Amino acid sequence: MQSIIPVKLPQNAYEIHIATDGLKEIGKKAKSLNIGKKVLVISNPEIFDYYGQTVIDSFTQEGFSVNYHLIPAGESYKTLDSISKIYDTALNLRLERNSTMVALGGGVIGDMTGFAASTWLRGINFIQIPTSLLAMVDASVGGKTGVNHPQGKNLIGAFYQPKLVLIDPLVLKTLPEREFRAGMAEVIKYGVIWDKELFNRLESANNLNSMDVLSADLLSYILERSCLAKAEVVRRDEREGGVRAILNYGHTVGHGVESLTNYNTFVHGEAVAIGMAVAGKIAVEAGLWTEDELIRQNDLIKKAGLPLDIPATVDREDLLDSLQLDKKVKAGKVRFILPTEIGKVIIRDDIQTDLLRNCFRAS
Amino acid sequence: MQSIIPVKLPQNAYEIHIATDGLKEIGKKAKSLNIGKKVLVISNPEIFDYYGQTVIDSFTQEGFSVNYHLIPAGESYKTLDSISKIYDTALNLRLERNSTMVALGGGVIGDMTGFAASTWLRGINFIQIPTSLLAMVDASVGGKTGVNHPQGKNLIGAFYQPKLVLIDPLVLKTLPEREFRAGMAEVIKYGVIWDKELFNRLESANNLNSMDVLSADLLSYILERSCLAKAEVVRRDEREGGVRAILNYGHTVGHGVESLTNYNTFVHGEAVAIGMAVAGKIAVEAGLWTEDELIRQNDLIKKAGLPLDIPATVDREDLLDSLQLDKKVKAGKVRFILPTEIGKVIIRDDIQTDLLRNCFRAS
Ligand SMILES: NC(=O)c1ccc[n+]([C@@H]2O[C@H](COP(=O)([O-])OP(=O)(O)OC[C@H]3O[C@@H](n4cnc5c(N)ncnc54)[C@H](O)[C@@H]3O)[C@@H](O)[C@H]2O)c1
Ligand SMILES: NC(=O)c1ccc[n+]([C@@H]2O[C@H](COP(=O)([O-])OP(=O)(O)OC[C@H]3O[C@@H](n4cnc5c(N)ncnc54)[C@H](O)[C@@H]3O)[C@@H](O)[C@H]2O)c1
Ligand SMILES: [Zn+2]
Ligand SMILES: [Zn+2]
Repeated sequence: MQSIIPVKLPQNAYEIHIATDGLKEIGKKAKSLNIGKKVLVISNPEIFDYYGQTVIDSFTQEGFSVNYHLIPAGESYKTLDSISKIYDTALNLRLERNSTMVALGGGVIGDMTGFAASTWLRGINFIQIPTSLLAMVDASVGGKTGVNHPQGKNLIGAFYQPKLVLIDPLVLKTLPEREFRAGMAEVIKYGVIWDKELFNRLESANNLNSMDVLSADLLSYILERSCLAKAEVVRRDEREGGVRAILNYGHTVGHGVESLTNYNTFVHGEAVAIGMAVAGKIAVEAGLWTEDELIRQNDLIKKAGLPLDIPATVDREDLLDSLQLDKKVKAGKVRFILPTEIGKVIIRDDIQTDLLRNCFRAS
Repeated sequence: MQSIIPVKLPQNAYEIHIATDGLKEIGKKAKSLNIGKKVLVISNPEIFDYYGQTVIDSFTQEGFSVNYHLIPAGESYKTLDSISKIYDTALNLRLERNSTMVALGGGVIGDMTGFAASTWLRGINFIQIPTSLLAMVDASVGGKTGVNHPQGKNLIGAFYQPKLVLIDPLVLKTLPEREFRAGMAEVIKYGVIWDKELFNRLESANNLNSMDVLSADLLSYILERSCLAKAEVVRRDEREGGVRAILNYGHTVGHGVESLTNYNTFVHGEAVAIGMAVAGKIAVEAGLWTEDELIRQNDLIKKAGLPLDIPATVDREDLLDSLQLDKKVKAGKVRFILPTEIGKVIIRDDIQTDLLRNCFRAS
């Protein structure tokens, strides 16, 4: 089973291939891209242990000369220093302009590999093999690459498009369940902000909280519709400024919750789930959305094993303050992405603080 | 006196302003670009001493909030580490997406500032104020930005276009004469490879070896025609692959001479001058160019106070070997850019080693 999503950007065109057991085919797929012989696979030790050999073998069989570079797992390694080490490897291997860096991993590996590829020799080829659900449906689509600054996430980076994204759903088998659920938060987000049909299909599933409970068909469908949603939003607004902002649904409050719990209580997707529940309530309180649809959204969030409530330990006034600091704030106004019906949102920056307070208190 | 060169690229359009005493006008010019309030001027201590205050005042008068960041002078500071320090400053100043980094300096400052601007927040505004002749006619045009890897020049970088290039010829007054002459090598290059009229005009000057011997008119003309030449070549081939290669006229042998003299004997432009003399001789020996025009080229090189001969200390066989290592080599074939008449060159990769040997021996 394979489905192909073409992504057409003004300057670039590439395809997202969703292919069960597709890892074995990466060499063949890469060969058809008309790229140079040298390939550098970038991964972390855990993921490479599971899937590295399959990928290397596949490239080797097609006559590529393959090497790999490993970076320890974790967001704390998403740094300029890790990029500098990739450069050293690129230099030692004498990578050329038509050589290719391949990201085999979650969003951390994907973001770093893309940035390294975009800046080595001012840009060499880049292939994404996302291995986490979040990377498949979110990080690997849209061309944002980069690393963190010690004092802020994703402050350093580039817009850079891959030549190919290969999604093999089977690799999700080894993804920790908590990470799977975190990715599912973004999937639900696409349902609410963009794709009613996806939302309905998610509703029809008995469960969403683990890879094992999903049929192969449903999983492929989820991956496809999510990538389509993100690709379409990004296509309309490659460098941000307009519609792309809707991808931040649930993220305004989500970021506040993440930071006020010192990034040690929730993974990103869990915070986004809470953020969607709160944004949904704001929309209802503001008279923009129906209570009925809010409940449907929240039922999906629960079914994915994700939290809905802001923890009691988070001071509501601190949360209000944190919104003002968010980088999406323009001229002191907090922008909220708010649903008006399943599959549709609007952007509002005129929500009264009292209304927010009420919603936070009740969340 | 002001002349404006529009640069039209598929995704970007901006202008090069050549304006005598234009430094004072930078604030006004920037204001018309519709950029944010925050400006970060990046320079080195020497250049900032001469021109920093004028630039800062000009921005301040127009209501910008201006800060500066200095990097010690010299190619040895063109590193990822220097970029990392720019990021720290950008973070401390809370630069935003509509903020602007301004390069006030030679090619080293320009290349670094452009790279920092292209990667901070995935790209903020960038303005170039080149202060060396080389930066005015070469480095500031074409969108190449970047830094060196400890083991190779310009290996890390991005293609990134400025919002504006401001060239104030008056700043050349303080440029060391040797640097001036080095820039003149690239000017002569444009005459030979692209612009016969520029070449003729250079021939009509009594002298080319210092800023003081040139009339203001001739200097402006030189700057304008050189920028036009580079901008036009780059427009046709923004990311390299085709015609842009002709900009490497004189650079194949030039790089070899630079590296075999350990980068401590010639500045870049001097090595390029030698490279042009050698390439010209190769063209004549290969029956592509007339001896007469070669002599005219070499007379210009001499008039600019630039060298023509490969020094005796450079072993000719080592030089031959070095050509093979040059990054412009494809599949073992050395590509030469060779004149066929003043203002026209062709690219050839079939020059016999014996012919090269003869030319090197006689140079
Ligand atoms: N570029 C974008 O548009 C974009 C969008 C969203 C998020 N991001 C970035 O993505 C990152 C988060 O991505 P993530 O959630 O994938 O985190 P991650 O890359 O850290 O992966 C999460 C964990 O799962 C492990 N893992 C991944 N795939 C696995 C598999 N198949 N089997 C076993 N273990 C596996 C990883 O080793 C890691 O420990 C953040 O840095 C974020 O900034 C980028
Ligand atoms: N981006 C490109 O397309 C491109 C093209 C050619 C060269 N370059 C790069 O440019 C760099 C070389 O540029 P450069 O020759 O300008 O070197 P540079 O920037 O080091 O400047 C040369 C010297 O002149 C001084 N200087 C510059 N302007 C001055 C002024 N007005 N008054 C007094 N002193 C002044 C500088 O402080 C420095 O000491 C190299 O790093 C090269 O790789 C880039
Ligand atoms: Zn998210
Ligand atoms: Zn040069």
